[in-house]
Amino acid sequence: MSAVTESFVSVSKESDFPIQNIPFGVFSTAEKDKPRVGTAIGDHALDLSEIAHAGLLDHVQGLENASDIFSESSLNKFMSLGRPVWRATRSAIQEILSKDNSKLRDDAELRKKALIPLSHVQMHLPAQIGDYTDFYCSREHATNVGIMFRGKDNALQPNWLHIPVGYHGRASSVIVSGTDIRRPAGQRLPAKDAKAPIFGPSVRLDIELEVGWFVGKGNNLGEPIDINRAQDHIFGLVLVNDWSARDIQAWEYVPLGPFLGKNFGTTISPWIVTLDALEPFLTNGPDQKEPEPLPYLQENKPSAYDIRLEVQIKPAESSKFETVTVSNLKHMYWSITQQLAHHTVNGCNMRPGDMGATGTISGPEKGSYGSLLEITWSGRDKITFENGVERLFLQDGDEVKITGQASTGEYTIGFGECNGKILPSLYN
Amino acid sequence: MSAVTESFVSVSKESDFPIQNIPFGVFSTAEKDKPRVGTAIGDHALDLSEIAHAGLLDHVQGLENASDIFSESSLNKFMSLGRPVWRATRSAIQEILSKDNSKLRDDAELRKKALIPLSHVQMHLPAQIGDYTDFYCSREHATNVGIMFRGKDNALQPNWLHIPVGYHGRASSVIVSGTDIRRPAGQRLPAKDAKAPIFGPSVRLDIELEVGWFVGKGNNLGEPIDINRAQDHIFGLVLVNDWSARDIQAWEYVPLGPFLGKNFGTTISPWIVTLDALEPFLTNGPDQKEPEPLPYLQENKPSAYDIRLEVQIKPAESSKFETVTVSNLKHMYWSITQQLAHHTVNGCNMRPGDMGATGTISGPEKGSYGSLLEITWSGRDKITFENGVERLFLQDGDEVKITGQASTGEYTIGFGECNGKILPSLYN
Repeated sequence: MSAVTESFVSVSKESDFPIQNIPFGVFSTAEKDKPRVGTAIGDHALDLSEIAHAGLLDHVQGLENASDIFSESSLNKFMSLGRPVWRATRSAIQEILSKDNSKLRDDAELRKKALIPLSHVQMHLPAQIGDYTDFYCSREHATNVGIMFRGKDNALQPNWLHIPVGYHGRASSVIVSGTDIRRPAGQRLPAKDAKAPIFGPSVRLDIELEVGWFVGKGNNLGEPIDINRAQDHIFGLVLVNDWSARDIQAWEYVPLGPFLGKNFGTTISPWIVTLDALEPFLTNGPDQKEPEPLPYLQENKPSAYDIRLEVQIKPAESSKFETVTVSNLKHMYWSITQQLAHHTVNGCNMRPGDMGATGTISGPEKGSYGSLLEITWSGRDKITFENGVERLFLQDGDEVKITGQASTGEYTIGFGECNGKILPSLYN
Repeated sequence: MSAVTESFVSVSKESDFPIQNIPFGVFSTAEKDKPRVGTAIGDHALDLSEIAHAGLLDHVQGLENASDIFSESSLNKFMSLGRPVWRATRSAIQEILSKDNSKLRDDAELRKKALIPLSHVQMHLPAQIGDYTDFYCSREHATNVGIMFRGKDNALQPNWLHIPVGYHGRASSVIVSGTDIRRPAGQRLPAKDAKAPIFGPSVRLDIELEVGWFVGKGNNLGEPIDINRAQDHIFGLVLVNDWSARDIQAWEYVPLGPFLGKNFGTTISPWIVTLDALEPFLTNGPDQKEPEPLPYLQENKPSAYDIRLEVQIKPAESSKFETVTVSNLKHMYWSITQQLAHHTVNGCNMRPGDMGATGTISGPEKGSYGSLLEITWSGRDKITFENGVERLFLQDGDEVKITGQASTGEYTIGFGECNGKILPSLYN
């Protein structure tokens, strides 16, 4: 934990962005529409291109050309510099924002240029995402889905306890929080035992509560990343809503996996929270004794994170968000470092800005399930909202919000919001 | 077919690159190591950045800043300009290379700068590939694999005749012909009925004979590409070897599809052959009557290509390549335009430089199967080379070469080579 605990910028107790956080993101403003790099502090964005331009980051070791790096419209260059530089930069920013540091505090002109209310900024994707991989690492989620599809006795596939199962997702359709989602159309079976598919808008549009991780420093093709060095390759985490069309997915996914049921949109929260900020929340994940993982997946330190995750929905007919699930990243069976080590053990190369995601993070009870598929048990049990509106899957106009927080009691590290609203299909 | 049929640059009868071809690629030379755009004519590369710099492309409509566009280290910008510009540029290049055109022919200085023997150039990836999608569109291949895995009666999955089945591949590990392939390690079952996996180098390393297609102009998220306009979104084709570790793949692929069994490397040929050059070879593909495709997959013109495809292997113990299969792109059940229309029907967005691949293209007989898995019938029937060397799957030091040609009788449009050599695992 950093020694700096208080900023001259006012930060409310409930803020996701205290001085202990210092997430990284890309934003623009009405006055200057070129996207550039910033951090968030309380209700403000701090424009790091301005801070660097003013010379306040000149002393950070390894961060040559800070002004250029933070004037980029993505974090990829900064990500490629490696963890010691990310860490030194975060510390330097904490120093600059400290209530005891006069450099920015007493420079009215620079404050005006660099400190911008969050309500005035437009957030963008934080990185140019080269490849996006989605995992399937919650035992509860895999078990729930397995029971629904194959019955209780064959719920987990034989490989599941040996492999952090993952598949390639679509990078082009990863979008930033606040972007509307067009209901996808596609092939689906009109009934479970139908022989031929029909074409039309998905009628089982779902969410998936996930956490994403961004690769910072990559690896060369052919050279695996050792699990006990994997943390140094991960720049930080975001919230992910991996929108899913269950009917399209069910018909298409055998034998090569999910495709059009997923690649119409994946929403992420805009601020990447660094692993350094999350270090106080490291904890032990679920036991991995039966079976023990193969050696390349064995870690020598805690690698789960205690982060509370919440999904809220505002139905089209309602004016407020209501909570439909509360889960926690610590429930996840395979850690993000195990995911990265597995992904590269065959020599697959990672590049700065590549993104992984955990797969749906479900907890042990119904109130902690991370998808409507599980909460409604495949469309059997309705969710009833306060005004009496009911849902099995998402309807047009529904809005979904995911949030995540980790708290010490003293302060809270949050992720901001991961939001999206459903637009009607073009084929209605 | 273009009116220009002869170049002042000498082109042998066997060349893949007559004046009717004019493929696009990215290359560098020892003298100038910055990659830039070129075409191939006979045994020479033509440096299009030099040609544009000399003003010879100034008149091409829609190709403003030709010198900048062809000085890029990828084709992405050129691809984004759309088919009318690609077509006009190709015609202009044919004019410049025509035996009757003196502009380049009689300019000794420009010829020296712009016409470089292919043996002196280093080829690079032709595009920055945002996303790579691999399909599974040969009925023969899907049937062969289905018989091996599930028996003759259930060979094709119920969705196969309705959907051009595809899945997301890994873009970061797409590499250009000539790059060595490190044998991947990973989890596999030591025996078919084993309960727990072991870790080690793949012992069933395979090839897949495929053809790749590059997206030229993309589409916005949420807006499908109509099948009868799909051709205008495809810049051109390359040869693809989708290296596959069958043992890793078999253990990992349920339920989310192939992952580490594939993403350790995918080799492509460096020259992208345009659909305009391939137009004379359009033909009707296999009948699609039982069942008829859904309307969004129905095309109003021929969409298969008659392109002969050949795989040769040079075993480590041998000094020459020997043919192991001869197939043809026309065997493929689902066309590349059907693949693109399906991929976007849910609104998934394509970007210039995105790549699709057909999946293994197997013909009807054993001599035309596109993978060792099929040729050896899952490791049952050995391939014997002339010097008596035998193979079931690839050994360290083996080299694989894929070639492709389409011939009118008058001339041949070829793709160059798609080569790779197997390096030993790091875990031996």
